Amino acid sequence: MYETIKTRLNNLKNNKAFELSVVAVIIISALEIGAKTFPLSSGAVSVTHVLDIFITLFFLFELSVRFIADENKKRFFTKGWNIFDTLVVVISLIPINDSEMALLARLVRVFRVLRMVSVVPELRVLINSLIKALPQLGYVILLMFIIFYIYAAIGSFIFNEINPKLWGDIAISMLTLFRIMTFEDWTDIQYETMEVYPMSWVFYLSFIFFTAFAFLNMVIGIVVNVMEDERSKLRKEKESAQNIPTIEDLHSEIQQLKALIISQQQSTNDLTNKEHLS
Amino acid sequence: MYETIKTRLNNLKNNKAFELSVVAVIIISALEIGAKTFPLSSGAVSVTHVLDIFITLFFLFELSVRFIADENKKRFFTKGWNIFDTLVVVISLIPINDSEMALLARLVRVFRVLRMVSVVPELRVLINSLIKALPQLGYVILLMFIIFYIYAAIGSFIFNEINPKLWGDIAISMLTLFRIMTFEDWTDIQYETMEVYPMSWVFYLSFIFFTAFAFLNMVIGIVVNVMEDERSKLRKEKESAQNIPTIEDLHSEIQQLKALIISQQQSTNDLTNKEHLS
Amino acid sequence: MYETIKTRLNNLKNNKAFELSVVAVIIISALEIGAKTFPLSSGAVSVTHVLDIFITLFFLFELSVRFIADENKKRFFTKGWNIFDTLVVVISLIPINDSEMALLARLVRVFRVLRMVSVVPELRVLINSLIKALPQLGYVILLMFIIFYIYAAIGSFIFNEINPKLWGDIAISMLTLFRIMTFEDWTDIQYETMEVYPMSWVFYLSFIFFTAFAFLNMVIGIVVNVMEDERSKLRKEKESAQNIPTIEDLHSEIQQLKALIISQQQSTNDLTNKEHLS
Amino acid sequence: MYETIKTRLNNLKNNKAFELSVVAVIIISALEIGAKTFPLSSGAVSVTHVLDIFITLFFLFELSVRFIADENKKRFFTKGWNIFDTLVVVISLIPINDSEMALLARLVRVFRVLRMVSVVPELRVLINSLIKALPQLGYVILLMFIIFYIYAAIGSFIFNEINPKLWGDIAISMLTLFRIMTFEDWTDIQYETMEVYPMSWVFYLSFIFFTAFAFLNMVIGIVVNVMEDERSKLRKEKESAQNIPTIEDLHSEIQQLKALIISQQQSTNDLTNKEHLS
Repeated sequence: MYETIKTRLNNLKNNKAFELSVVAVIIISALEIGAKTFPLSSGAVSVTHVLDIFITLFFLFELSVRFIADENKKRFFTKGWNIFDTLVVVISLIPINDSEMALLARLVRVFRVLRMVSVVPELRVLINSLIKALPQLGYVILLMFIIFYIYAAIGSFIFNEINPKLWGDIAISMLTLFRIMTFEDWTDIQYETMEVYPMSWVFYLSFIFFTAFAFLNMVIGIVVNVMEDERSKLRKEKESAQNIPTIEDLHSEIQQLKALIISQQQSTNDLTNKEHLS
Repeated sequence: MYETIKTRLNNLKNNKAFELSVVAVIIISALEIGAKTFPLSSGAVSVTHVLDIFITLFFLFELSVRFIADENKKRFFTKGWNIFDTLVVVISLIPINDSEMALLARLVRVFRVLRMVSVVPELRVLINSLIKALPQLGYVILLMFIIFYIYAAIGSFIFNEINPKLWGDIAISMLTLFRIMTFEDWTDIQYETMEVYPMSWVFYLSFIFFTAFAFLNMVIGIVVNVMEDERSKLRKEKESAQNIPTIEDLHSEIQQLKALIISQQQSTNDLTNKEHLS
Repeated sequence: MYETIKTRLNNLKNNKAFELSVVAVIIISALEIGAKTFPLSSGAVSVTHVLDIFITLFFLFELSVRFIADENKKRFFTKGWNIFDTLVVVISLIPINDSEMALLARLVRVFRVLRMVSVVPELRVLINSLIKALPQLGYVILLMFIIFYIYAAIGSFIFNEINPKLWGDIAISMLTLFRIMTFEDWTDIQYETMEVYPMSWVFYLSFIFFTAFAFLNMVIGIVVNVMEDERSKLRKEKESAQNIPTIEDLHSEIQQLKALIISQQQSTNDLTNKEHLS
Repeated sequence: MYETIKTRLNNLKNNKAFELSVVAVIIISALEIGAKTFPLSSGAVSVTHVLDIFITLFFLFELSVRFIADENKKRFFTKGWNIFDTLVVVISLIPINDSEMALLARLVRVFRVLRMVSVVPELRVLINSLIKALPQLGYVILLMFIIFYIYAAIGSFIFNEINPKLWGDIAISMLTLFRIMTFEDWTDIQYETMEVYPMSWVFYLSFIFFTAFAFLNMVIGIVVNVMEDERSKLRKEKESAQNIPTIEDLHSEIQQLKALIISQQQSTNDLTNKEHLS
């Protein structure tokens, strides 16, 4: 009997209408979250309460369907997106009366919108590609962090007394340096320190130069990787699917030709020899 | 008689001088719109009135020529640019005395400048490529919207009381986030919320990181697409127009060679056999 | 005798030491211009006067050498850089006492620094590539101008009374729009108009979107062009200089092979036939 | 005996655990530097003193190991990173009591963090690629400097009296122009000069255009170089390592085939001739 339920739920899970209704409920959930940020009448507030319970129950139902329909229960929780979905559903179920926790409960409901990513495969691919690209860029990010760290240390040693709000300690300095990297009112910071240390423009210009270069390197790294992937994917598709001959194929063909001609020549020679002998 | 008019109008439509005069009238129309933004003497104002009537009539005439010269009347209004041209002409014809509507009438006249795009084919190609690129980027734009929506919801929940002008509701928050994405005085917003929530820099930095990455992905997506298109276009042109042999051609040539040699070998064998037999 | 002078001057012109001394005088001229922007003692001022006369005379001498050494006098003034050099030298020679003209005279001296570009071939190539790239981008620039013009017209019609300093007429509006494109305090302008027209954020966001897209298109256009040039240059170099066979060569080789085998087959057939006949 | 020490130190140097402990000490050194920017209790201060002595001694030990283990003592100091390491260690050893020099001593300790780059090979490769890319970009940087210099000279001549803080001399002007290039409050500077010279927007817009174009050229130059390198590296790897035939290989194969067939044909002819003769 469990098997029949499982098969039915699996059919339900793969049903296009069911998939669309999940997307629809996520969109309704998103709209509800948005609506809550506006001042609402008491009637509208009670509607959102009912809606909230419905959404929570629907998500619980959908997650159960997917869990029961899954062949391998253990593997279900090794996939990041399943863990994320379960967490969102479970935390929504906890009843919260404490006013301090109310904000947290609200925030968790916001993450329901992220379920859109776990449901739409194309978005999941995009996010996965983002996560995959990170380790490749590891050393550039490490280098950038070292640059930030050194400049933040120098900045908080030298400029500390000029403006503690910007250069108070190494953490604040790193935030200030990020601000400088985005060019946001960076000259105000520069002019302030140049009044005490007229040569401090060297600090800012060299920092901008180094981070710009590291950032550029990072971007180019991604572009080159993406394009190489695209190209090799394209080539493989072309070669395998459309059965187009490659240079290697040509090579082996020519090799066969050569073997053929040599064998022919030998047989001719044999013939000649035989005739001579005869 | 209708046919002769049609042929004549078709000749007129394809006349280079006529095309250039259309462009000239659009430029005059653009200059008139520009001139109107400056304070004008009453004489100049009456000149613009006359000019306005002339431009409206000329555009009406040009549209009629194109409409009558067209073979298929029904297909005429399926093309976006024709609908756009007709709308611009028709709305210009409506006499407006109401002072409130005067601004609207002025705005419609501004869109006459866009007729430059509908008349110059190269510009039309550019705009079409823009419109074509949009659906391809659909999922990245959707992902970006989800990121904006989630951050706007969080922002308006947490920072609402700090500055309702920036974080009042989800719509205002999204505008504020767009401002942060352009790095425009984003640290002012950050410092304001950091006084209440010292850890709120995580909110801003993670947002900047995610949107920057999504934007980068979008740009790379366009670049890769454009370059692939260019390359495949180039390859096709090269292969078809200049009649250069491809690897496939080489392959079939070698296959033919092989068949030739095999048939030759067989005939030699036959010959030898025959001789032996004889 | 004129011919011997010409040959000697030609030798002088192509002399490495002479070329380097021209570069040295341009650098000295640049340093002098820079020094003049600092407050100078009267002694230093008189030094710059002497230096100025020396530089003017040296440039006159150098230009004369190049002019006399040139084979074709008429063609000399068809080259843009020669005209530029002549203008810089001639205007430097005009004695200026009028205090109003003094500023202009100073500015002309500044352009001597640009002579560095006309003297160093690598810089000349860079500038030429800039000038060559412009017409290719013609239509994108035209499209961008149309976008600017339409938005400036709309802006000066609607926002004129809110802030005439920013939206006074179409020229001022275009400058304001350029400021918005660089994201420089654009939200101040936006918030100002949003107080009167709450929906005016549509104006700003759509403008930013369109210009960003057009700009992106422009950049990609340049990148694609540059890379195609690089690639085709590389390919040609490879194919011609290193004498590497192409696919076409392979094709003709295989054709020859086929002809050979066919002729061989025929001769074998002839032989067989003859033998049969005999 | 010296030789045995050398071999042992060489083994130590190449020991994975030793390498990791060097990285660990650098990280501890970095954390110590960061901690010092926060207000510390007197106990924590004495801990950092002890830590400082330990780190200095460890670095001295590590450098000695590397120096003694090196085969060629003279070549040791020709490598930039070794010189850098030695300088950092030696300056750390100098005892500084003077309060004025204390800041300098602190700064030198900051550069210990850069030792991470000299120890981790992947980071060294990144920095080396940065240094290698610079001369390639030499002429673009020179062109950019000339643009900056000319605009700074013009700016300090014309706008000097409007705002000496921004346009006082050519050095200050160049800093101001760098600010304009980063779009940081550039319109404030522009509006200020436009009040005296209404046409001065030409100065700013042309400057932004030229530097943007030069910068774009620079970026594209790097991208093209990097991608060409990647591609040629890829091709070489593919051709050599995987032993895939190239078009040249095919060409020589076909040549051999032709020679074979021709020789065969000749032998057949010879045979025929002989038979006729016989």
